[in-house]
Amino acid sequence: MAQVHDPSKQNAVDMNKARSATSIDTPAVRDFLYSKSNGSARWHQRERIVEVLSKDPLFDKSKKLFSTRKELYIRGQALTKRLYELQEIQGWSEEDITVALSVVDEGLSIGLHNVAFEPVFRIQASPELFSKYSELIANKGIVGCYLQTELAHGTNVSRLETTATYLPDTREFEIHSPTLTSTKWWIGALGKTATHGVVQAKLILPGGKDMGPHLFLIQLRSLDTHKVLPGRIIGDIGPKALAGFATTDNGFARFDHVRIPKENMLSKFAGVTDEGKYVTPPHAKLSYGGMLYIRSGMVTTAGWTIAKGATVAIRYATVRRQGELGPDGLERQTITYPSLHVRLVPLIARAYVFVELGRALTRGFDSLARGLSSGDTSQLAEMHVMTSGLKVLVSTTGIQDLETARRSMGGHGYSAFAGVGRMYADYLPAATYAYLPSSLQADFIYCSSELRYEGENFVLDGQVLRAALKAFRGIFASESASSSPVKASPLSPTSHYLRLLLDKDLVPPELNPASWTQAGTAILLLEWRAALIVHECAQTLKEPDATATQRVSRAVTEAFVAARVGEMIESLGTVLKEREAKIVGKVYLLYLLTTVESSLVDLLSFGLFRATPTGNPPRSRDPTRALRLAIAGLCGELLPEAIGLTDAFGFSDWELDSALGVYDGKAYEALWARVQEEPLNQTEVTEAYEASIKPLMMRGRKMVAKL
Amino acid sequence: MAQVHDPSKQNAVDMNKARSATSIDTPAVRDFLYSKSNGSARWHQRERIVEVLSKDPLFDKSKKLFSTRKELYIRGQALTKRLYELQEIQGWSEEDITVALSVVDEGLSIGLHNVAFEPVFRIQASPELFSKYSELIANKGIVGCYLQTELAHGTNVSRLETTATYLPDTREFEIHSPTLTSTKWWIGALGKTATHGVVQAKLILPGGKDMGPHLFLIQLRSLDTHKVLPGRIIGDIGPKALAGFATTDNGFARFDHVRIPKENMLSKFAGVTDEGKYVTPPHAKLSYGGMLYIRSGMVTTAGWTIAKGATVAIRYATVRRQGELGPDGLERQTITYPSLHVRLVPLIARAYVFVELGRALTRGFDSLARGLSSGDTSQLAEMHVMTSGLKVLVSTTGIQDLETARRSMGGHGYSAFAGVGRMYADYLPAATYAYLPSSLQADFIYCSSELRYEGENFVLDGQVLRAALKAFRGIFASESASSSPVKASPLSPTSHYLRLLLDKDLVPPELNPASWTQAGTAILLLEWRAALIVHECAQTLKEPDATATQRVSRAVTEAFVAARVGEMIESLGTVLKEREAKIVGKVYLLYLLTTVESSLVDLLSFGLFRATPTGNPPRSRDPTRALRLAIAGLCGELLPEAIGLTDAFGFSDWELDSALGVYDGKAYEALWARVQEEPLNQTEVTEAYEASIKPLMMRGRKMVAKL
Repeated sequence: MAQVHDPSKQNAVDMNKARSATSIDTPAVRDFLYSKSNGSARWHQRERIVEVLSKDPLFDKSKKLFSTRKELYIRGQALTKRLYELQEIQGWSEEDITVALSVVDEGLSIGLHNVAFEPVFRIQASPELFSKYSELIANKGIVGCYLQTELAHGTNVSRLETTATYLPDTREFEIHSPTLTSTKWWIGALGKTATHGVVQAKLILPGGKDMGPHLFLIQLRSLDTHKVLPGRIIGDIGPKALAGFATTDNGFARFDHVRIPKENMLSKFAGVTDEGKYVTPPHAKLSYGGMLYIRSGMVTTAGWTIAKGATVAIRYATVRRQGELGPDGLERQTITYPSLHVRLVPLIARAYVFVELGRALTRGFDSLARGLSSGDTSQLAEMHVMTSGLKVLVSTTGIQDLETARRSMGGHGYSAFAGVGRMYADYLPAATYAYLPSSLQADFIYCSSELRYEGENFVLDGQVLRAALKAFRGIFASESASSSPVKASPLSPTSHYLRLLLDKDLVPPELNPASWTQAGTAILLLEWRAALIVHECAQTLKEPDATATQRVSRAVTEAFVAARVGEMIESLGTVLKEREAKIVGKVYLLYLLTTVESSLVDLLSFGLFRATPTGNPPRSRDPTRALRLAIAGLCGELLPEAIGLTDAFGFSDWELDSALGVYDGKAYEALWARVQEEPLNQTEVTEAYEASIKPLMMRGRKMVAKL
Repeated sequence: MAQVHDPSKQNAVDMNKARSATSIDTPAVRDFLYSKSNGSARWHQRERIVEVLSKDPLFDKSKKLFSTRKELYIRGQALTKRLYELQEIQGWSEEDITVALSVVDEGLSIGLHNVAFEPVFRIQASPELFSKYSELIANKGIVGCYLQTELAHGTNVSRLETTATYLPDTREFEIHSPTLTSTKWWIGALGKTATHGVVQAKLILPGGKDMGPHLFLIQLRSLDTHKVLPGRIIGDIGPKALAGFATTDNGFARFDHVRIPKENMLSKFAGVTDEGKYVTPPHAKLSYGGMLYIRSGMVTTAGWTIAKGATVAIRYATVRRQGELGPDGLERQTITYPSLHVRLVPLIARAYVFVELGRALTRGFDSLARGLSSGDTSQLAEMHVMTSGLKVLVSTTGIQDLETARRSMGGHGYSAFAGVGRMYADYLPAATYAYLPSSLQADFIYCSSELRYEGENFVLDGQVLRAALKAFRGIFASESASSSPVKASPLSPTSHYLRLLLDKDLVPPELNPASWTQAGTAILLLEWRAALIVHECAQTLKEPDATATQRVSRAVTEAFVAARVGEMIESLGTVLKEREAKIVGKVYLLYLLTTVESSLVDLLSFGLFRATPTGNPPRSRDPTRALRLAIAGLCGELLPEAIGLTDAFGFSDWELDSALGVYDGKAYEALWARVQEEPLNQTEVTEAYEASIKPLMMRGRKMVAKL
């Protein structure tokens, strides 16, 4: 039998062909993704760091999947030590080490020191406490964690049970966990690592008055022996679901009347006198406002996370051949099936949008920080609403897109070597838990004594709903459907869509197939949807349905994002050459169209989607058909660019750690190589044979012999 | 400070209260779930087996989460040996051991012997081969696996690369893997366990004629030493994503010109003469038809899987208090929040429907089997379409519902001790891979030389679409939108909805708030949706949009299921007492309403959802509002029954293996107890301290000292 074609050799041929078919200048788009202004420099900085790390044997990933959690924790600590050694050896700047921690992407415990403990301390510590500890903290002379969540309390910080009772006689606070459920829980780096922590506890004044949660610095372990200090019960909370975040020692802590000096209260904004009187913060609003915005990096992180999944899935779909024979006489590359690529190309779009949107958000935080430092809190509420809605949107989308990527790879997507499962497991807590970006991309962090738990998404949706109704009521005096607007005060970006209700002459756009070539139509539709759903919600507040909060939050946030995408499209010409601007413009447009598609229930419900039937005579009765065809068409147009657009993310094979997503396309060879490392394959006959398999079979054979 | 309330003690109080609030006779509903006719007996059989297993120390689960995959595999083999020992000791019947394997729920390799290897062999082996091996196989004197999928081929069986070349001189077949990508892959029990396998290979006749895939029995390992026999390269394919299916040794195998005797061809339906001539099967259609329907247990498995997730999540939401203060002065139980229970109660509905629907499907397979054994293949095509659509529907739904359950638990849902993550990881391959129910609930399995790979869901959707269009064309001669029906031949259950297109006088139901109290409206709406979407699809076939296949498949399958649910509601009075029938009837109705809700895009697009505005004057412009309110209302009505309805699933704590879903409600105590077992907690100071943490901190302290 003649052997005409070796699929595993074909892999590289297909990948080369796809790569050379790309019409864009991939490095130019890559630089654009890394930064609008100095992308090339930022990417090369990153490339140098990846080079150093990927060649250091300690950062080898090949044994990770065969390790226990304990081994992964110990490895994580070794990586941490090595990273800071490398910083010295390589002369890395603070920005360099941040990039290094980000590309290592291991959920290292030190990340919690960097993004939670240290910023909270720096912003809230009194000058005295600051001068005593800040250098030790900055240089990792001590390692800290941030103890907020308790076993039975997360979302509702005001119900935390841990107490800090002030004792004027000795000028001490007594930190105490009165119940099992008051045990601090989920605290990253607490389990086995941290020597110190900032603990959230209810301040109890002499006489018993409860002043609500405040922050206190507490030592947890001996600096000489690393043993847990008396009065503390501390440990690791065990494995996480789906084997996610295995490296991090999320921990628990109970305190039994532990005394700390009065100076250990983080009292920059609120404190007690020696006698035990509460001293109100000089800038109450500033204190309230400085919420822990670990959220700031979340949009960017979601973008890069989707980017990783998209890169792997699109590379594998490019080399995987299956099903019908194509024009070359071979089975078709799976990426050529519309049912597959209409699922995958939109991942590229969401990655591109979130990366760019994250940058805008970071600039917003910059501006907020400047404002706050001069006492200006005017941007705070807006930023809170925006990030609440965005947190829900990007985490939900990111999780879903990773699973789409995994599933698109068929059976092999369920192999750990495919790599996307690991990405999913590590990203999943974004939906339910405090947003802790493993990549530490949070550049700007604020915190206060009113720290907010970034709880389950639906709690955040409530924040968006409340703000939307407030903005609506700011316009309409009554809740009546037909009342006239009271005032036309300037609308903030998150409520800009409400302008559509201010002018009775404004009407939603008419739709026809050409509508879907223009970003403006999609943006306007999404803004109308937000306006009408908020209007509806305000009319029916007395009898709300159970999903209104989620629907309103999603609609408002997507209208906001859509408007930003419109701006992004307009500015493309200034940062990219014509060809690249055109392709990235189509990528952005695809984001808008798929957002419209996922909003169809709302759009149809509110009569925004009365499309002209297509054809003459009309062959279709489905008003959504033109949109669906436009999406499929756009995905088809972008298909030849898919490898270029994902190459532009700039991930090395070491970072992706995926046998199916290798740069050279040789997926099956890579998978074969990985499989040989499986511990079960290191002995020809498993030890289970003598112990179990042989006795089972011998018993069976005896029974047969008796027949 | 007075301690007024201990949340961890409150857990048990809340659970007791919820349990006693249930108005239904829980054991009666439990018996109904286990079987309509002899549920009580079946449940007690199961209870006895659970009792034996849960008390056997070998079946203890407390160390599983801390074990490596290798340890889990070895443990799995020990469990297997023990299960068959227990069968002898306890005098378990074949049905008992099937139940035992199901409640153990560990993805044991022997499952593949039982549900894939043995049935394929029994149905396809020639009488000679059968008499030689059947007893050995039945008694586990040898252990087998079924080798179909290859490294680069799953979905398209006809492109498998492995060859079986007939050599007339020696009357042998030569089994060969010509390429890396022809390596058999993902084969359960192959990695380290099986001694034999049935391999799918292209039959090559003398002269080189390729007859397509056929089946051959091949020995893989020595029966004396368990070593891999010459000419085979065999191993385990490594860990699965999300640490799922860790116990199963999915394996790979390459064959290098391995010769087997001619008799080893499974030649009941097709063979070769000694000279090498192909003998066509006497009943070609029968052979074609006998597809490997491991699918038969999938609906039931999905039902019980969702049931587990629902039990855990609803129990935890009953004892978890968070947020606002309720009438009792404590924070509210999270289950009382509509935004939470409107997500969780529908899980109960889907579990109840799938469990009952699975039973109906099993009866259908019974009937199909009887037909096939007498040469009647008339039910085959219908069963194929039905199960294709159902496989997609139930696997997609099951995965989504488990994640809903996990997410509803907030941060703790991400703890491995919550248990739902493990359920998710093990159930996930249902979406992409051959359907291998770990619970071995597949009672009826058919197979043939045209075995179908149960590939990615969207391949199966294509099967449904094709059948729907065929049925449509059977009615309408032309594709023209307005042509009259040609014939009104009796419609099969999967195309019964097409009757709506046969009578021009039939119109979709008018909707008003009262519509949602009647199952009939929802069923009719879902049938209209199927009819109109198939009609639309037939009109636009020349320019299909990329998602049409999925939409049509979903619509057709949901119309079929809805009609079955209607029948289930009608028959409730005959199997349950009044109160229980009423409550389960509401559960079924909730299934229908949430299905309508998830179909809103289609229903709105095709003008099926023009609800009368509610209120006078109408306060709402949202036509979906009455439906949403009805769903929220129904969830609220069912809320007091939620613990009773989930208790009725009859899961023991040992089976659920969830700290948050414990029967007595003491979730936090259970979580605390589990955490103490974490290996990292067995030493006070981690070994990472001397190796990494101390050097890092000493370096930092030195730097500070230098300042």
